[in-house]
Amino acid sequence: MSTLTRFSVSLKKTLLDRFDRQIRREGYPTRSKAVADLVRNSLVVREWEAGREVAGAVLLVYDHHKRELSSRLVHVQHDYHDLIISSQHIHLDHDNCLEIIAVRGKPGEVQALVRKLKSIKGVKFTRLATASTGRAL
Amino acid sequence: MSTLTRFSVSLKKTLLDRFDRQIRREGYPTRSKAVADLVRNSLVVREWEAGREVAGAVLLVYDHHKRELSSRLVHVQHDYHDLIISSQHIHLDHDNCLEIIAVRGKPGEVQALVRKLKSIKGVKFTRLATASTGRAL
Amino acid sequence: MSTLTRFSVSLKKTLLDRFDRQIRREGYPTRSKAVADLVRNSLVVREWEAGREVAGAVLLVYDHHKRELSSRLVHVQHDYHDLIISSQHIHLDHDNCLEIIAVRGKPGEVQALVRKLKSIKGVKFTRLATASTGRAL
Amino acid sequence: MSTLTRFSVSLKKTLLDRFDRQIRREGYPTRSKAVADLVRNSLVVREWEAGREVAGAVLLVYDHHKRELSSRLVHVQHDYHDLIISSQHIHLDHDNCLEIIAVRGKPGEVQALVRKLKSIKGVKFTRLATASTGRAL
Repeated sequence: MSTLTRFSVSLKKTLLDRFDRQIRREGYPTRSKAVADLVRNSLVVREWEAGREVAGAVLLVYDHHKRELSSRLVHVQHDYHDLIISSQHIHLDHDNCLEIIAVRGKPGEVQALVRKLKSIKGVKFTRLATASTGRAL
Repeated sequence: MSTLTRFSVSLKKTLLDRFDRQIRREGYPTRSKAVADLVRNSLVVREWEAGREVAGAVLLVYDHHKRELSSRLVHVQHDYHDLIISSQHIHLDHDNCLEIIAVRGKPGEVQALVRKLKSIKGVKFTRLATASTGRAL
Repeated sequence: MSTLTRFSVSLKKTLLDRFDRQIRREGYPTRSKAVADLVRNSLVVREWEAGREVAGAVLLVYDHHKRELSSRLVHVQHDYHDLIISSQHIHLDHDNCLEIIAVRGKPGEVQALVRKLKSIKGVKFTRLATASTGRAL
Repeated sequence: MSTLTRFSVSLKKTLLDRFDRQIRREGYPTRSKAVADLVRNSLVVREWEAGREVAGAVLLVYDHHKRELSSRLVHVQHDYHDLIISSQHIHLDHDNCLEIIAVRGKPGEVQALVRKLKSIKGVKFTRLATASTGRAL
């Protein structure tokens, strides 16, 4: 746990007033939390661009009836087992599954995994959710 | 399972050549799968805009040492239990957790949940990953 | 011109160090300017969501050889003349034009204009660039 | 001008029906135009990722009263004159200007220009609008 540092910021009064109204509307407890969130978001964008170690999730929607789909998904995930932490499987309805794969590693490798999964027949939708390992955030 | 329909599309030859090179590079098995993915992505964007029932995930990075954080997270999630399907918890390191909450419901309610979670002290990062229930995709 | 207000923010030391490295890399003169930019960006996102008056640009790439395209583009733009401030036309090559239309108005109306322009035959690409009227920023 | 090629695509009937409803709602004249737009959008995303020559616009909102701001903006723009095609200046109100700079070049250089402009004191907001030179689109 790192120590807290205080620093001061100058903003135009009208701008600060608008920001205060926004963070009140969003239920933020303090201005510091709101500023810290903005700072952390900008650092996470940068982590992904800079190729540093990141964490996140890959979401897949697919039709489990498609022949051999499940075994191909498992096969690809094993090829990337260094990257994959765990996965969560949801039966959306009779046909559709939502699979959420938690990942951790280099952005380029995560994107390669997404490309592999996306191109599999029967996978209807993929989404990469970029998050962070939280280190130094 | 719905029946397949064939239809034809006209593209400039140079555009089709570029598209073919791209889908080969991405490992797509067929042009139909690549076009279908583009179509489905555009429909999912629309599902979220139109307020229809959607599915997705909320990712949180937080420091579990923060006092009362875990109980507040559980508390908020119970307020939105209609929306939340299940969650996956990853211990990133000594301090940081990644929690991935699978959700299903109206976009506006999902966004309200995200705002609630985001404003909690100790939550360092939130990301909403928009996906789909897969119906008619 | 509004007066400046000073306020203080608490961040973890490690987080502030990372932020300082980032803003140095990006050439920011001061921390206040960097924080103000993050605050303003978040307010502009909100302006578009909340339907307040905004400013921005619509970019079009099109092939000016397409029959009647120019006259249809002019026609649509006149239907939305309340929204359109001015436009800039660039001859990219023998066939392609880039047109950049500066707009100001309600987000919903700007999006309606984009839809109209996008669906015109010969328009190959459209992009809405969301910015702000700058009021109270 | 390139020749048109016809090819056929298989989609599930329910998916095609939804797509047809969407493109009707958006006013598209034909399915081919709608598919071509999706294909071109995906190629433009790729152009920016792959570092090929692109076109676009940089939007700036700034307060022209800020001392020496105009001359610094001109100075930076001259450093990147190879990239900048032309610019459009809008007086939003007594204080605020919207400047829209049409650019063409490598994505990395465009992003470097944006960083330079963003960090200048008095510039309140910047937005990079990614478009295309239209070649082979």
